[in-house]
Amino acid sequence: MDASAGIPDLLARLGARLGPAGLVTDAADLAPYAIDWRRMFHGRPAAVARPGSTADVAAVVDLCRAAGVPIVPQGGHTGLAGAATPDASGRQIVLSLARMNAVRAVDPVGLTIEAEAGCILRQAKDAAEAAGRFLPVTLAAEGSAMIGGIVATNAGGLNVLRYGMTRGLVLGLEVVLPDGTVLDGLRALRKDNAGYDWKQLFIGAEGTLGIVTAAILRLVARPRHTATALLAVADPAAALRILHGAHDALGETIQAFELISRTSMDLVAEHAGLHSPLAGAAWSVLIEAGSSLLGLREAFESVLGAALESGDAVDGVLAESGQQAAGLWALREGVSEAEGRTGRSVKHDVSVPISAIPAFLDETARALAAGAPAARGNVFGHMGDGNIHYNVLVGPDDTTEAINAIVHGVVERFGGSISAEHGIGQYRVAELQRHRRPAELDLARRIKHAIDPQGLMNPGKVLPP
Amino acid sequence: MDASAGIPDLLARLGARLGPAGLVTDAADLAPYAIDWRRMFHGRPAAVARPGSTADVAAVVDLCRAAGVPIVPQGGHTGLAGAATPDASGRQIVLSLARMNAVRAVDPVGLTIEAEAGCILRQAKDAAEAAGRFLPVTLAAEGSAMIGGIVATNAGGLNVLRYGMTRGLVLGLEVVLPDGTVLDGLRALRKDNAGYDWKQLFIGAEGTLGIVTAAILRLVARPRHTATALLAVADPAAALRILHGAHDALGETIQAFELISRTSMDLVAEHAGLHSPLAGAAWSVLIEAGSSLLGLREAFESVLGAALESGDAVDGVLAESGQQAAGLWALREGVSEAEGRTGRSVKHDVSVPISAIPAFLDETARALAAGAPAARGNVFGHMGDGNIHYNVLVGPDDTTEAINAIVHGVVERFGGSISAEHGIGQYRVAELQRHRRPAELDLARRIKHAIDPQGLMNPGKVLPP
Repeated sequence: MDASAGIPDLLARLGARLGPAGLVTDAADLAPYAIDWRRMFHGRPAAVARPGSTADVAAVVDLCRAAGVPIVPQGGHTGLAGAATPDASGRQIVLSLARMNAVRAVDPVGLTIEAEAGCILRQAKDAAEAAGRFLPVTLAAEGSAMIGGIVATNAGGLNVLRYGMTRGLVLGLEVVLPDGTVLDGLRALRKDNAGYDWKQLFIGAEGTLGIVTAAILRLVARPRHTATALLAVADPAAALRILHGAHDALGETIQAFELISRTSMDLVAEHAGLHSPLAGAAWSVLIEAGSSLLGLREAFESVLGAALESGDAVDGVLAESGQQAAGLWALREGVSEAEGRTGRSVKHDVSVPISAIPAFLDETARALAAGAPAARGNVFGHMGDGNIHYNVLVGPDDTTEAINAIVHGVVERFGGSISAEHGIGQYRVAELQRHRRPAELDLARRIKHAIDPQGLMNPGKVLPP
Repeated sequence: MDASAGIPDLLARLGARLGPAGLVTDAADLAPYAIDWRRMFHGRPAAVARPGSTADVAAVVDLCRAAGVPIVPQGGHTGLAGAATPDASGRQIVLSLARMNAVRAVDPVGLTIEAEAGCILRQAKDAAEAAGRFLPVTLAAEGSAMIGGIVATNAGGLNVLRYGMTRGLVLGLEVVLPDGTVLDGLRALRKDNAGYDWKQLFIGAEGTLGIVTAAILRLVARPRHTATALLAVADPAAALRILHGAHDALGETIQAFELISRTSMDLVAEHAGLHSPLAGAAWSVLIEAGSSLLGLREAFESVLGAALESGDAVDGVLAESGQQAAGLWALREGVSEAEGRTGRSVKHDVSVPISAIPAFLDETARALAAGAPAARGNVFGHMGDGNIHYNVLVGPDDTTEAINAIVHGVVERFGGSISAEHGIGQYRVAELQRHRRPAELDLARRIKHAIDPQGLMNPGKVLPP
């Protein structure tokens, strides 16, 4: 059956249900929905449905299902793997959650926030802040990313070391299933062992099993005091020893432990004009801790002192103000953009066991030197949670596939993941098939088939079509 | 087909595979595997298989599958809902994980522990402790409960307020599926968004989808300093205001916030001979915080001082030593056993949104007064995470069903859960069917069917047979 045959009819039905504000069909208006954030994928949607309520989402899903037309759910469209971008067939409907953007409730005692899927992350964070609480998902894209996408991609970010991934923050979820059923699990409960915890299926499934329409997320008390420092270290092994000592002295107050290579710092200096106070360091560590207790600063300084005394740190700068701390963070946050200005690079978002990071970095550098001698690593990332962005500045003859194969081959030998936080989307579907075990892939297919037997929910993402 | 017809043959095959140490068939030896911890369920297993390795577990599952014989996975058998107890048909095989009891690895820098399913929780905690780290699952049954059961039931306990449920600690999992396939997901990764996070399905599924054979759990740094106090409050609303202030001042250092009714304290005094220093308090709050930072005690005292000054606390005792803290905990931990000596009671393990607890307690008391005037609430629990054990000391004419219906009816009106931490097992299967929405139950059945199409994995638990 040629599904496109029924599309004009489907669009008429969608328009009748959603009204003029709810359906976009004009080619110029469709353009921003058709290209992903990194501009790697150029799709062509048949239309964009913009439902204003959960009932409307269910109606759209039901109409598409009846017509046999696939749906691509889309939030802030800031994902890095193309999960929210339609294919080029012209036969997929993008379902944008952007109109469902309310913060429904903030509870500062129960430490919860309820928000609709289209609520922008920063808006949710501001609402928490206004109630004296903190929504601990911190991302570069937080001014555009939406709650539904944060949940559907199990977003990571800068606070994972302390607060975990988004999965750990989701208490309740409302989902529209591929058959149009609304699953209402909007329970503001920290403990609920009454049957299968089905919401886990939809967190991180990138819209392939259903559409997240609203969520209740856990909040935390915001630490009143913060301490931030940059350390110069000789190598990642020294950084690991510093991390060990920091766990002992600071416990869960450590909220960031970032590793930055000299190449990364040099790029930031060259392309962003930002100069590290520890310029020339072989490796740098950005460490931050936060607590509401007095005594944070003292413990933090003791960690730095011990690192300098042992020689694990060869130099260090402790931020004396919020402005100085922001200056240190600007170095770390400038790496991606600086890389973008150097020419072509191949990005990786990998994780390995934390204590294996020094060996992993060594082995990857050796493998690249052997297999792609013109390439150069731009290595940085969230060392404290095992997530390294091992990006590669490539030579003219290096293919993306060859570089991926080298880096991900080492990741696999270390029992790591080829996508720590960015997900699979359409970008890494084929790689996932190579890197996960057959039994895992088979189980994933069984889950997909059980929940989306027609295969109309974001097809070709995460799993092969 | 009468499955029992093939059981002698199956036992012969199991015996040949597992050897004499691996198969229990003697009636006297079977007894401890046949009765649950609370002695509510009396089953009759055909045999108990005690595999010594994951390969053996897979072989047992495969042999049972071929014979069409159901399997009941069993760990420390300390669950409170009968999930690990076989039925009385004499046609189920109990699969005990007790021989797979190794701690395989502890990583104090990466903050992980890898243990086999039959490893006793306390043994795993001791191994973490020896490496200077803490496995934050704290349960009365930790000397018997096993890692596999902890994972399969998503165990809660006394530290959930700070560290979350077991689900949040599971980084990697090895599972044997109902068809005998081994799913190896033993990855020591904090971040892994490479495809569906299938391990979530098996956490809390109580052995109905597969058998957990090993797990990698997250460790934390153990707080060096602890502060513990008991406060007398007039009512739960005052306790809630104290909790609010504690979040502000202490943040995530709060590791317990327990509410204890006067009835509970009186029972402990009468039956355990333990007397609260605040005897006569209408309600008591046990609050504990922990941190490695100096300044904990000062912040803790400021919370107590503010509570006394505002009148939310009418009296208070701050523990001056570990021994005094243990004495305060003994009061809280003595409630269940004291209740057991009073005669018949009906236990509930419910959760509601934290800020709704005062209204929930009021409404439940009113509903019981109206519907079961001879009954009396023995109310205590983990107020800080919304989990109340609303146990009921019943009159001679009160049926369990009637009391459950009253309490769980109020829970439902507050958007709560009828099983916060104990799970469903075989105890609450029928109630779950009444309290969850049809769409949720339908999805659960679809998941079960996709993974266990023959229905041989712990049938009749969580879902109806």
